[in-house]
Amino acid sequence: MFEAIFTPESVAVIGASPNPERVGYAVLKNILDNGYPGAVYPINPHIPEILGCQAYASVLDVPDPIELAVLVVPIGQVLPVVEQCGQKGVRGLVVITAGFKEAGSEGNELERKLLALVRSYGMDMIGPNSLGVIDTFSKLNASFAGVMPNQGNIALMSQSGAICAAILDWSKNRGIGFSRFVSLGNKTDINEVTLLRAWGSDPESKVILAYLEDISDGASFIATAREVTRQVPVIAIKSGTTAAGSRAASSHTGSLAGSEQAYEAAFAQSGILRARTVSELFDLALIFSYQPLIQGNRVAVVTNSGGMGIIAADAVERSGLAMALFAPATIERLNHDLPPSASVYNPVDILGDARSNRYQTAITAVLEDPGVDGLIIMLTPQAQSALVEIAETIGETVASYKKPVVTCFMGGYSLGPALAALSRAHIPNYTFPERAVQSIAGMHHYYERRRRPQRIYRTFEADQEQVRQIFADAHASGRVELSEGEVRAVLSAYGLRLPESHLALSTEEAVQQAAMLGFPVVMKIASPDILLKTEIGGVKLGITGEEAARDSFELIEYRTRKYWPEARVHGVFVQEMIKPGQEFLITVHRDPQFGPLVAIGLGGMYVEVMKDVAYRLAPISEQDVRDQIRSLRAYPLLRGAGGNPPVDVLAVEDCVLRISQLVTDFTEIVELDINPLVIHHEGEGAVVLDARILIQ
Amino acid sequence: MFEAIFTPESVAVIGASPNPERVGYAVLKNILDNGYPGAVYPINPHIPEILGCQAYASVLDVPDPIELAVLVVPIGQVLPVVEQCGQKGVRGLVVITAGFKEAGSEGNELERKLLALVRSYGMDMIGPNSLGVIDTFSKLNASFAGVMPNQGNIALMSQSGAICAAILDWSKNRGIGFSRFVSLGNKTDINEVTLLRAWGSDPESKVILAYLEDISDGASFIATAREVTRQVPVIAIKSGTTAAGSRAASSHTGSLAGSEQAYEAAFAQSGILRARTVSELFDLALIFSYQPLIQGNRVAVVTNSGGMGIIAADAVERSGLAMALFAPATIERLNHDLPPSASVYNPVDILGDARSNRYQTAITAVLEDPGVDGLIIMLTPQAQSALVEIAETIGETVASYKKPVVTCFMGGYSLGPALAALSRAHIPNYTFPERAVQSIAGMHHYYERRRRPQRIYRTFEADQEQVRQIFADAHASGRVELSEGEVRAVLSAYGLRLPESHLALSTEEAVQQAAMLGFPVVMKIASPDILLKTEIGGVKLGITGEEAARDSFELIEYRTRKYWPEARVHGVFVQEMIKPGQEFLITVHRDPQFGPLVAIGLGGMYVEVMKDVAYRLAPISEQDVRDQIRSLRAYPLLRGAGGNPPVDVLAVEDCVLRISQLVTDFTEIVELDINPLVIHHEGEGAVVLDARILIQ
Repeated sequence: MFEAIFTPESVAVIGASPNPERVGYAVLKNILDNGYPGAVYPINPHIPEILGCQAYASVLDVPDPIELAVLVVPIGQVLPVVEQCGQKGVRGLVVITAGFKEAGSEGNELERKLLALVRSYGMDMIGPNSLGVIDTFSKLNASFAGVMPNQGNIALMSQSGAICAAILDWSKNRGIGFSRFVSLGNKTDINEVTLLRAWGSDPESKVILAYLEDISDGASFIATAREVTRQVPVIAIKSGTTAAGSRAASSHTGSLAGSEQAYEAAFAQSGILRARTVSELFDLALIFSYQPLIQGNRVAVVTNSGGMGIIAADAVERSGLAMALFAPATIERLNHDLPPSASVYNPVDILGDARSNRYQTAITAVLEDPGVDGLIIMLTPQAQSALVEIAETIGETVASYKKPVVTCFMGGYSLGPALAALSRAHIPNYTFPERAVQSIAGMHHYYERRRRPQRIYRTFEADQEQVRQIFADAHASGRVELSEGEVRAVLSAYGLRLPESHLALSTEEAVQQAAMLGFPVVMKIASPDILLKTEIGGVKLGITGEEAARDSFELIEYRTRKYWPEARVHGVFVQEMIKPGQEFLITVHRDPQFGPLVAIGLGGMYVEVMKDVAYRLAPISEQDVRDQIRSLRAYPLLRGAGGNPPVDVLAVEDCVLRISQLVTDFTEIVELDINPLVIHHEGEGAVVLDARILIQ
Repeated sequence: MFEAIFTPESVAVIGASPNPERVGYAVLKNILDNGYPGAVYPINPHIPEILGCQAYASVLDVPDPIELAVLVVPIGQVLPVVEQCGQKGVRGLVVITAGFKEAGSEGNELERKLLALVRSYGMDMIGPNSLGVIDTFSKLNASFAGVMPNQGNIALMSQSGAICAAILDWSKNRGIGFSRFVSLGNKTDINEVTLLRAWGSDPESKVILAYLEDISDGASFIATAREVTRQVPVIAIKSGTTAAGSRAASSHTGSLAGSEQAYEAAFAQSGILRARTVSELFDLALIFSYQPLIQGNRVAVVTNSGGMGIIAADAVERSGLAMALFAPATIERLNHDLPPSASVYNPVDILGDARSNRYQTAITAVLEDPGVDGLIIMLTPQAQSALVEIAETIGETVASYKKPVVTCFMGGYSLGPALAALSRAHIPNYTFPERAVQSIAGMHHYYERRRRPQRIYRTFEADQEQVRQIFADAHASGRVELSEGEVRAVLSAYGLRLPESHLALSTEEAVQQAAMLGFPVVMKIASPDILLKTEIGGVKLGITGEEAARDSFELIEYRTRKYWPEARVHGVFVQEMIKPGQEFLITVHRDPQFGPLVAIGLGGMYVEVMKDVAYRLAPISEQDVRDQIRSLRAYPLLRGAGGNPPVDVLAVEDCVLRISQLVTDFTEIVELDINPLVIHHEGEGAVVLDARILIQ
């Protein structure tokens, strides 16, 4: 878990300064002031003592071993200093110095050299361009942040130092605690993937937060996150998703932002909870940090205001959670214990004059109902409310139940001490009912994801050798787009169904093959040079008899010779004519960060006008492809909505998984389009009618 | 403007009490403690003096006139006391006493009597079941709220007393000011419509907020809101929109919540800004209260953190606003005045060490750029930031520009004094960038709505008499569903195009009419008793010649006699066969609160599976119908997406407006379905192929 960085025995601050305006002062002071028990060595060649510590000219002058070095030296000194650290046997580096990749090509080159040097000595490095690192358990604050966070169970990594600082400031105000805190900077060595893997087994961290502007290696990010999120919730906010955001991001830390669809798919497939806004990130952190994991979707509301209860019930229903239905015993108990004008059904309205005892009565009855999985307790400050007492009673009452409880104390002026009491009791309070509900919904979403069985990746037998040969041929002849015959061969090698097809070299052969296939048939010119066959009249559909077959063959031959005399012609394909069905399309596009992004949708207007498309990254698991197909708005059409017979959805899943395997096996495929895939009735399969493949 | 309620010369508190635990004490104390300059009379038959004021046994015992009476008496005394108030010449009432409509049928009856009594004396009443009324200009706090709000320009009405209390508490904490404050209670006399009308011309109110659970009279609400929102922004939150919320609402104030679609349409057509969450309500209130109205959609961002700038740019783009493109002079100026590593393009990154002078430089340059309509200033507390100084500088710098400016100071712990400085300068601060952007987007939405020309209601010539006669006939014969001939006559009377149709009584007549119309034709049995004509074989399409016409007529006659011998048969309709086109549907359903709700969508899967439907309430204006059609996701199909020729959208608008006029003229229409309307190519019109009408 990168012990040298989070729990070192000794720390050197290289570039430590006695000037309170300098970062080299702030870092040293943060280490000294926050109870770090190890040895601390300021390194500064010009000054013998800083903040009461003996200073050294270089790490090589320090007589004892140094485990971690924090660098705040000018950029020109970074490489020589790192070289000295390597010689000294330093194991961890936190490089705060900026001016690398983010500053242009010269900095980029320097960063490359820095990484090589760090690797050559087997050191681990955070940064450069980092705000620093904090560990509240080892009491190390090796950063220039203005605030030392409380100890707690939230681990945070951030690509923006400023966001780190804002989060620290925000959390301090609410008594929220962190375990580890990393400003990733340019994440040249340790990045979001290595850190995620390390924190996945960290006993002190109950939830991991990440603010990301880009992801270094999409595939390993997904694989790592998938494992880690089975142990601990990971909540991420990814900025730079729109065009304007991406422009801003690339001038910020020089990151190349991936496509929004790829990120969306990556989060969905890895089990990461994606926060849409910074406020959502904070809201989710709070509930996961403080409360036990919810075990179902049934939510109860206890409120001292009917109006607030309505808003909460609305929000619960909109969020996909359910308002709990109380057991008769609960209703009876509430009826007995509450005043007659209270409402004993969910939301429970305990009226504006409720004091702590009435809150206690209602909360106890509701939490003991086995049909309740989580609870929202609401309060608007009304006349005579003893707010602090209510807050403390809530804290004591809910502690013995293993169900998540959040509060929504609404207002501001009179709430300060009550909110502090809630925070001490580790009850997350949300100022607005919708945010309380959204937080529970996020927790429930995580619960649902985690209880799913492990993803299953189906593997199909495939003739890889045949595909390799075809790509080699195309490559040898300098083509990036495969011919129809090649496309057919590639897809067949992966078990996709295509119309039966035979190459005819003569009129008589064509007639024989057509008769053998059974009329009607299709004929198409077979030429590696002619891609737009229809446009030169090289395709005939619906050929219904021998005479038509003869005419078609000769017409195609004639036209090809006339309109494209220099084309190489291998003959004419005589093909089975596929009966009509639901048209579907599958397209693959290689994302620079995440690899093959597989898009699916229904043919025609559904994709073009209604933009009804669902994305997943290959390799796609069985669960993912099911989710993908079901997330299409037009999915009911496949199941027979509108009176059409249901089509073979299993066959579609099978096709998508085979394509996923193909584009995973062959990274040279940059684009693949199946349009249309014709899906027949249930049990009757699906056939690829037309396809294109582009390779590198 | 209900002077007797908001600015009375004298107030009686009927049911005033010396016991600090009682509401009758809280109300009197609030009036006395907050500087109300008029005469105050406690009314209590048992006590001679309360809180230093002489008390009277009844209003009739008070020697001087009383303008306003606040009632906090037990429910049994309300009617006699109101009677005394009437006799005394009291002009305004605020009834705090509860137990009326919300408590059941007995209370409902009492409430009916109360209203009659109030009306008989010509008094105005707030409540019953109200928290009270506050006016910060007349300094009257006739409520039992725990907090007196600051004076300001926000007027608030709320159907929930608790929400009122929470908003007061929240606002007090931030120094936000209100002009008037009304807890509507059961809104038996004064309701959201009368109050909206009164406040529309209130010089002290710059923005109106409303928390609503139901709307008493949909049509007058829309008409009033439409006028008022041209003068002053109205922001409303409507709760009880989902099934769970509605159940909770009906047990709360006994309100019957209308359908979500009707509310959505009502807000869209009336120009009211709808807040989705309580937090959005507050956020919008803040910007409208503090800042000048935005005059365009181009937003600039100035930030001391690149990461925050990215988040803001993302949010701006997602919100429909645009990131401003700076003029070359602005870029040059920023380049000259800011440090070299600053980013001078929007978002402007003035770096983590920015102090107030750098903020001032950047803000001035950006606000002077004519291509900037609004500004978001962001700050994360970084090392050495002099936060209060920055906040004060922002306040001073932006004051002279007539462009809205908001801040996003992110964090908590270290921000308190800086936030207070922003609040003093009337700069709205949002803790999260997305909320800052959403608030500007809401303001821009209002700006766009207000600058539109007044809505135009087209009126078509129509034969109302004919429709009236048909409805009378149907009514007389006890039918609720009109026959096909009647439907044709009603729609024709309003100028909708239908296939040409003639009634044939004999085979020869049918053949002649078919020949006259030109083949192909359609034939249908004409019978008021047979609604599902197709099912008994009573419809023949695509009749292509004289022989087929003869056969069809006789087959229809035969089948009708065989399968439905008792049906009255008027003959057989011979109809023009309409050429195919884009199928469309228009349906009208009468909403209990808002009247006729007109839904439109494309035929087939677009409505049934994709749920692509747009709603407006009749009467629909020209602008509304344009918005309605364009808001369909499938709208591009009508404009020729996917290679189809564009269809006659103007004809669709015309049909929807004619239907709107019909259902507005005839309130007895409870349901009307046109399915399909066949739309032909541009300029070729649209024809109603099939329709149903149900009347009361």
